Amino acid sequence: MLTNLNQQSILDFDKGDPTMYEAYWKSIGEDFKITISASEALSYFANPKSFCWFMLPKLEQEIRNLHNVVGNAVVEGRHIVVGNGSSQLIQAALYALAEPLDPSSPISVMSAAPFYSCYPQIAHYMRSGLFKWGGDAHAYDRDDQPYIEMVNCPNNPDGELRGPVVNKANGMLVHDLAYYWPQYTAITKPVDHNIMLFTMSKCTGHAGSRIGWAIVKDSHVAKQMVKFLEISTIGVSKEAQLRAISILEMISTNSCSTNFFEFGQFVMAGRWKTLREALEGTDILQVPNFPPRHCNFKRNYIECNPAYAWMKAQEGINLEEVMKEENIRVRGGGTFGCPSNYARLSILGRDNDFDQFLKKLPSIVKRLAHSKF
Amino acid sequence: MLTNLNQQSILDFDKGDPTMYEAYWKSIGEDFKITISASEALSYFANPKSFCWFMLPKLEQEIRNLHNVVGNAVVEGRHIVVGNGSSQLIQAALYALAEPLDPSSPISVMSAAPFYSCYPQIAHYMRSGLFKWGGDAHAYDRDDQPYIEMVNCPNNPDGELRGPVVNKANGMLVHDLAYYWPQYTAITKPVDHNIMLFTMSKCTGHAGSRIGWAIVKDSHVAKQMVKFLEISTIGVSKEAQLRAISILEMISTNSCSTNFFEFGQFVMAGRWKTLREALEGTDILQVPNFPPRHCNFKRNYIECNPAYAWMKAQEGINLEEVMKEENIRVRGGGTFGCPSNYARLSILGRDNDFDQFLKKLPSIVKRLAHSKF
Repeated sequence: MLTNLNQQSILDFDKGDPTMYEAYWKSIGEDFKITISASEALSYFANPKSFCWFMLPKLEQEIRNLHNVVGNAVVEGRHIVVGNGSSQLIQAALYALAEPLDPSSPISVMSAAPFYSCYPQIAHYMRSGLFKWGGDAHAYDRDDQPYIEMVNCPNNPDGELRGPVVNKANGMLVHDLAYYWPQYTAITKPVDHNIMLFTMSKCTGHAGSRIGWAIVKDSHVAKQMVKFLEISTIGVSKEAQLRAISILEMISTNSCSTNFFEFGQFVMAGRWKTLREALEGTDILQVPNFPPRHCNFKRNYIECNPAYAWMKAQEGINLEEVMKEENIRVRGGGTFGCPSNYARLSILGRDNDFDQFLKKLPSIVKRLAHSKF
Repeated sequence: MLTNLNQQSILDFDKGDPTMYEAYWKSIGEDFKITISASEALSYFANPKSFCWFMLPKLEQEIRNLHNVVGNAVVEGRHIVVGNGSSQLIQAALYALAEPLDPSSPISVMSAAPFYSCYPQIAHYMRSGLFKWGGDAHAYDRDDQPYIEMVNCPNNPDGELRGPVVNKANGMLVHDLAYYWPQYTAITKPVDHNIMLFTMSKCTGHAGSRIGWAIVKDSHVAKQMVKFLEISTIGVSKEAQLRAISILEMISTNSCSTNFFEFGQFVMAGRWKTLREALEGTDILQVPNFPPRHCNFKRNYIECNPAYAWMKAQEGINLEEVMKEENIRVRGGGTFGCPSNYARLSILGRDNDFDQFLKKLPSIVKRLAHSKF
């Protein structure tokens, strides 16, 4: 997003605001608009007979359909819980795992660095007696205590495919699979973990809707997550659910001339290609490489095109500061548990902003090459 | 709501699900439906320049307009924060007041009994180190510690108009004004407290939307509430905000043949009248009386018609249990910090359910009269 602060045009590559999808949704025109009358969905309840009583039954069905079409997660026999985005569902999962243990001291929540920069904040902000942020999972060495490990795959910020790293007897896992969709990575198998989190924001680009969902194996955990969502927000907006139904149905039934995931792959691949070209022949700024993998959805080998570029400069450089001096806002390595010569750049913004960034890149590389680190 | 559990028809008067408003919204027909295209409101951001960056500017304007039309709250020069219902805003307010104090032990959150049954749960569920449930405000006797008092006016469950009861130097107040609308009580003045909470659920009946708002005097408190909403849910569904805009605008501009609040007053007054008639001549079951008060909105003296009937039976009777045996679900006094001869019945349900309840009432009264308490 281009913002004008202090008379300066700032290129914002900090937030993962998925505005790149706007072009697709504009191209499909008015066919998939939804209409809601003033008398619809007044009640708190959407499905009083279900344990997740605030979820519209059709939304549950569309979530199951989409996973079956894409082949990225097992949904058969699993419980679906809708939330206000996956941020709230992370909290619901932590609550559901920790609360029944009635811990005498907060249970450690960890993730391997570089970890998603919001995990520490989410685990810490309420100063909960149920759980607390425990830092980089690589550094965990307690054998006797229960812990929760957040496994983000593909990982935000670096796009790596990862599993848990602690692997001790008392461990509980939450799989944050926000980016396990064909536009970002090869779909190699339907995954099947205890708690798996997804979100409209990164799947379809509808971040403004605040719709996420969890696929949960254990019914007690699912019920406990619903209890959290009841107390936290008494459920989830019905209007947002109604739109999610229409969007997910359109994608699953492939009712448009261009398949949604094809569009996503095309844009992401294009951006990564030009980014790599702009960095060719220099090691001043590096981004990770990913081997092509077979994607069951695409039925072909594909490059992986993560939602973020995890950039590395020479040691001693504060990459966030360097970018800031060029009026580019990025998220520094420190918030991901890493040194400040790393920074995360969102690839999910608008074409125009991405093009402007690419134009600025050679001068940044040149400047870094001449700096005295 | 009539539910069929174990082959029994259960009348649910437990939840405050405002389905009585459905008749009004159906009567206005299709004129106020909203349409949302697939490409609208994709971004997390609604107003990047505002401190409450996820709130649509038009929603803020409609909230201000409505309060100016009704005359129930001062909005001039105040900050508006939108949340996922007022439940989330209560938590945002507690966080905003407690967090900057960095308390060494959790700050007590209290409310005078009978208090809204969800306050204890909201203050307790995260076992927060910032705040904890402190019980009935009448019993508070510490002079030296900061505390937060929830002031619910008119009060859920008993409809009383109340102010704070502790009134000590270190007190912070949150005014929960969910029911300060003309259908429930006389609007005697525009109130002007530090933090005032309102919700679509009880104002217009759109509980399914999960839209609430806070009117906040202090900009630091407002910003801290936004910080909470960022971490908790990254803001509020844009679809729900879009519908709230359309509904609030319709009410403020009075664009229908029947004024919304007139309808609400009419239904509530009718229900209270028939309920009082059904209980006439007996003191076996009592409900509170309210003196007529001058309503500035109605420009006349009006009866107060609270959203709940706070019923009192003879001491020693468990009123919730008695009602349960009659297949009527109510919320027992215990959850409001009161003895079990009290119970709360929602007046906000559908006509048919209310009529069925009235039909059952004489036999309940008869049964209680013959019981041996």
